[in-house]
Amino acid sequence: MSDQLHNRILTELESLVLIDPHSHINPHDPASHNLADIMGYHYYTELAHSAGLPRELIEEPGLDPKEKVGRLVTKLDDLENTAQLSWLMEMADVFFDFTDEAITADNWESLYDTASEKMSHPDWEDQVLKLSRIEQVFLTNDFDDPLEGFDTNRYIPCLRTDDLVFHLVKQETRDRFSNATGLEISDSSSLKKGIGTLFEHFVSHGARACAISLPPSFSPKEVSENSVDPVIQNMLAGKELSADETNSLSCFVFWTLAQMCAEYQLPFDLMIGVNRRVYEEGVFQGQDLYDKRTSLIQYKELFNAFPQVTFPVSVLSQTSNQELVSYSWIFPNIVANGHWWYSNIPAYIELDCRSRLQAIPKTKQIGYYSDMYKLEFGYPKFAMYKRILANVLATDFVIGQKWSEQRAIDLGKLILRGNVETIFPAK
Amino acid sequence: MSDQLHNRILTELESLVLIDPHSHINPHDPASHNLADIMGYHYYTELAHSAGLPRELIEEPGLDPKEKVGRLVTKLDDLENTAQLSWLMEMADVFFDFTDEAITADNWESLYDTASEKMSHPDWEDQVLKLSRIEQVFLTNDFDDPLEGFDTNRYIPCLRTDDLVFHLVKQETRDRFSNATGLEISDSSSLKKGIGTLFEHFVSHGARACAISLPPSFSPKEVSENSVDPVIQNMLAGKELSADETNSLSCFVFWTLAQMCAEYQLPFDLMIGVNRRVYEEGVFQGQDLYDKRTSLIQYKELFNAFPQVTFPVSVLSQTSNQELVSYSWIFPNIVANGHWWYSNIPAYIELDCRSRLQAIPKTKQIGYYSDMYKLEFGYPKFAMYKRILANVLATDFVIGQKWSEQRAIDLGKLILRGNVETIFPAK
Amino acid sequence: MSDQLHNRILTELESLVLIDPHSHINPHDPASHNLADIMGYHYYTELAHSAGLPRELIEEPGLDPKEKVGRLVTKLDDLENTAQLSWLMEMADVFFDFTDEAITADNWESLYDTASEKMSHPDWEDQVLKLSRIEQVFLTNDFDDPLEGFDTNRYIPCLRTDDLVFHLVKQETRDRFSNATGLEISDSSSLKKGIGTLFEHFVSHGARACAISLPPSFSPKEVSENSVDPVIQNMLAGKELSADETNSLSCFVFWTLAQMCAEYQLPFDLMIGVNRRVYEEGVFQGQDLYDKRTSLIQYKELFNAFPQVTFPVSVLSQTSNQELVSYSWIFPNIVANGHWWYSNIPAYIELDCRSRLQAIPKTKQIGYYSDMYKLEFGYPKFAMYKRILANVLATDFVIGQKWSEQRAIDLGKLILRGNVETIFPAK
Repeated sequence: MSDQLHNRILTELESLVLIDPHSHINPHDPASHNLADIMGYHYYTELAHSAGLPRELIEEPGLDPKEKVGRLVTKLDDLENTAQLSWLMEMADVFFDFTDEAITADNWESLYDTASEKMSHPDWEDQVLKLSRIEQVFLTNDFDDPLEGFDTNRYIPCLRTDDLVFHLVKQETRDRFSNATGLEISDSSSLKKGIGTLFEHFVSHGARACAISLPPSFSPKEVSENSVDPVIQNMLAGKELSADETNSLSCFVFWTLAQMCAEYQLPFDLMIGVNRRVYEEGVFQGQDLYDKRTSLIQYKELFNAFPQVTFPVSVLSQTSNQELVSYSWIFPNIVANGHWWYSNIPAYIELDCRSRLQAIPKTKQIGYYSDMYKLEFGYPKFAMYKRILANVLATDFVIGQKWSEQRAIDLGKLILRGNVETIFPAK
Repeated sequence: MSDQLHNRILTELESLVLIDPHSHINPHDPASHNLADIMGYHYYTELAHSAGLPRELIEEPGLDPKEKVGRLVTKLDDLENTAQLSWLMEMADVFFDFTDEAITADNWESLYDTASEKMSHPDWEDQVLKLSRIEQVFLTNDFDDPLEGFDTNRYIPCLRTDDLVFHLVKQETRDRFSNATGLEISDSSSLKKGIGTLFEHFVSHGARACAISLPPSFSPKEVSENSVDPVIQNMLAGKELSADETNSLSCFVFWTLAQMCAEYQLPFDLMIGVNRRVYEEGVFQGQDLYDKRTSLIQYKELFNAFPQVTFPVSVLSQTSNQELVSYSWIFPNIVANGHWWYSNIPAYIELDCRSRLQAIPKTKQIGYYSDMYKLEFGYPKFAMYKRILANVLATDFVIGQKWSEQRAIDLGKLILRGNVETIFPAK
Repeated sequence: MSDQLHNRILTELESLVLIDPHSHINPHDPASHNLADIMGYHYYTELAHSAGLPRELIEEPGLDPKEKVGRLVTKLDDLENTAQLSWLMEMADVFFDFTDEAITADNWESLYDTASEKMSHPDWEDQVLKLSRIEQVFLTNDFDDPLEGFDTNRYIPCLRTDDLVFHLVKQETRDRFSNATGLEISDSSSLKKGIGTLFEHFVSHGARACAISLPPSFSPKEVSENSVDPVIQNMLAGKELSADETNSLSCFVFWTLAQMCAEYQLPFDLMIGVNRRVYEEGVFQGQDLYDKRTSLIQYKELFNAFPQVTFPVSVLSQTSNQELVSYSWIFPNIVANGHWWYSNIPAYIELDCRSRLQAIPKTKQIGYYSDMYKLEFGYPKFAMYKRILANVLATDFVIGQKWSEQRAIDLGKLILRGNVETIFPAK
């Protein structure tokens, strides 16, 4: 009976057409062309490498896509237990009618060929979105992205700002900044003005969020123009900045971004807790990890200073989830956002989903985003989440609290879609 | 079958009359007079505020109670998913026969009126306690509370010491101290003597615990009289104390409290991990949060120095629960105490309850306290806990380990009541 | 149906003969001689002490074993809820046909006598291993263990190195080092050479791992011979080393161990997170606790520097489990190893087991080790784990992902045994 209840709720959730509020889709080339586009996703390359496949074999220059898949397939058996591989199997089933128990040396080539054939259809992108029941996908755009040549109603621009906050000391970043804004950075004032130009550009092209990923140690503070100006001069003079100077500059840019979010009424997605390049010999995008010793208390000054800015917060460490629950429960401007990266496995999603539903106002939580690089991943990732959500709704609400099924379904739909619309409103 | 087992165990647990070992009840006015007394609880005001209700509307000076409830009701739908709202619905049902699915613009006034009518009965307090099956309630008394004018057999005094440890630098605190003790603080010796006077007063009025809440960074150390005396002189001279001096003074007072607990044989409730006023624009009592980066290792010196003092420990961060389990397993003088505040939601209680039952001697854990400000909350809060406990007893003990039902029920009753009596003995 | 599925999987897992990859067995006296050998295990003495039994009664010099058991029995009722006591009851049942609900003042003597009788059989060791379905047991050998006089095919030597890394400043340690290696430590070079001699000795006697337990604050770094040589000179001159010097020396020895593990192709077991002697008045081996504020990021330099060394990592704090999952997912040379000590209770094992199976390649996780001091504990500890594993396999894989039962069973067997063989290969 509980199984049937779960299935009825799940069916309702699955009927919903979604907006995916965070991805890394390239809007000029959103869907895959062959299985290598899917299996080249870092979740597979890094796991295959972790299981023993040398990086050189995976990232060999000029490697033929089919050969690459063949090499990765040799390690898939070692990964058969992982949630990540279950996504691959679900994609193979749903998109390519592949129903074997596993992808092996014996069957991968025919799967590869079937996939290539299907993906070559001119409406493949539309087919994928339709099957996935996703109608809009938020992007992760470089600050100097021209945002042209794609349908910004389907692919929603988001201003990603890691480079501005953490890599402005690189000449290359400043060159990109000048090209994008038409402004040379000469001091804090021109820097601020240029950032304003970026926001203007993004908002005029339909951007619905500013976003950044942050290391566990980061603790934003307001920095005055007077104190950052000498740092900027040192940077422009080519001097190496001290750790304090670098941090001042980062804080200044970060704080300016928050001010612009206030001015342009953009939510500011904070993705907190990643250390970059921890495993330096790892595969592309498979080098980052984290230090769980981080706290949202580090953002106290920010959250108090910008009550008018909505901060959808993602945390990388599952041990940060309770803080996210508590801070979202207290601060009107904090929203709990999705299940990010290393926390995006069922064992953690289930606990985190339950705790959020039990203690955060229902309007202040965004159930899930795909974080995908290719469109095909939207299906299995959201499917995983919906199954967990349906289970929590059935168990904690319908059975545990005698809610009607419809009421539980409505809650699920709000978490899955309604809140995305209200928290990231179209202008 | 498992459901029936759970229900049989729950029925037995529900039959028990309880002692609530921690609350904020005002013994001179313990029960509510209207729905605003209930919905004014910070759990509702802060969640309504978090969901978008301006603080000014909630805390408008001179606001009529009914109007206040009407304003809060506008946000209840946004909170319908929360455990906190489930308490409200359970109170409305149990106390006021309110069986609608939700409290809405259309039905709240009649609920308000029914509640006011019922609460106006002279025996309302007794009715609530009887329905809640609670016979004694521990209080949280200011150190200068005269402890007069109420039944100290029903309402058990507890000496709350935050002000002494953390706010002695305020002239107001020292004035209250002088008034309560008849002693001026002139040095460490008079300070100690005064604290002894407070203990004498509390114990003679039936106090059964000393209690304090502590910030995540606090790490108590023994401080000699010689080293604290100059700090006290600076304080009395009106000088601003350095962070080190302030900490020395806090440690000295804290250590003195532990010494007095030893002398007067009072348990010392430690409620570890709260940062006050993190969200400064929040509603009353809705401003505090925490930094999960705290450890019980910070109390190593204390736990070793006072083997004769029982320390019932509560932790605010759920990530501290395992430390609490392990430290209670090793130190004879540590007791795991309840499920505090941000950890007091079913998803966390369940995991924490299971881990405690699996690894701490059964005599060293206090299942639950209400932390309530008004008597009506005892019912739904304990009810929530009992349902979880019954489930853990059924699953982990009767089914998982083939215990008899009676044995599991006896364990539950010990956790719920027996241990409160032995850990906080009446003198 | 789910129960039957669970039981079928469990039966298959139970049929497997295991290798226990970490224990503290004394190979010259592996099994117990009386119930005091079992109940003298620190899990019982420390819990009985925690429940109120004075250390002096437990550790009275010259105490008769039977009298000791009698004293501990007085506290067993207080521990009846604990996982640790469930192990005792399971041993009593399986080995001594004791089927009473509890060990009490009335029945313990006959249990004691039965146990003594059974244990006196010359083949008791073999009986225990056979009943436990364990054929090989890894040891924890002091660095100066001669490794002679026992069957190194049944009891696998492992080089335990805590003393070398953290206690080389003690003259006693250096004397043992000289005796074992025939080398006096005069500088970094002779120290390194001696460590090489120890590895030579251990590997030639069948050692299959090097192992160490580490405090939460430890963060290994490469230290040059030039910078450690003055520290060694100070140590040899009897000067007290500064904290920095002590740490340099520890890091140098630790790094040398990793180099030798590379050279001798030994996995290096890291058991991360224990603070020794936190409760100084505790019973033997019942004094250690931890500080959860630790991170695997502290080992970044190590994991990058030794890609050719396998690091089976155990974490003491359950809040470190997700880091372990994520680091094992990314670093090819990290393996998640067992459920250690304070994390070795069902509530935590279940969550940790699920998360590992969902995100770490199946070849890179070792399900369980006993950590036992006496052979009899292998049975109940592995039994506890197998029940949890069978449940996770049934729920998450067979039911949740429609795996065949056989496929789930194969995964379980790999985790339980197969990986032990491949990760710790016999030479």
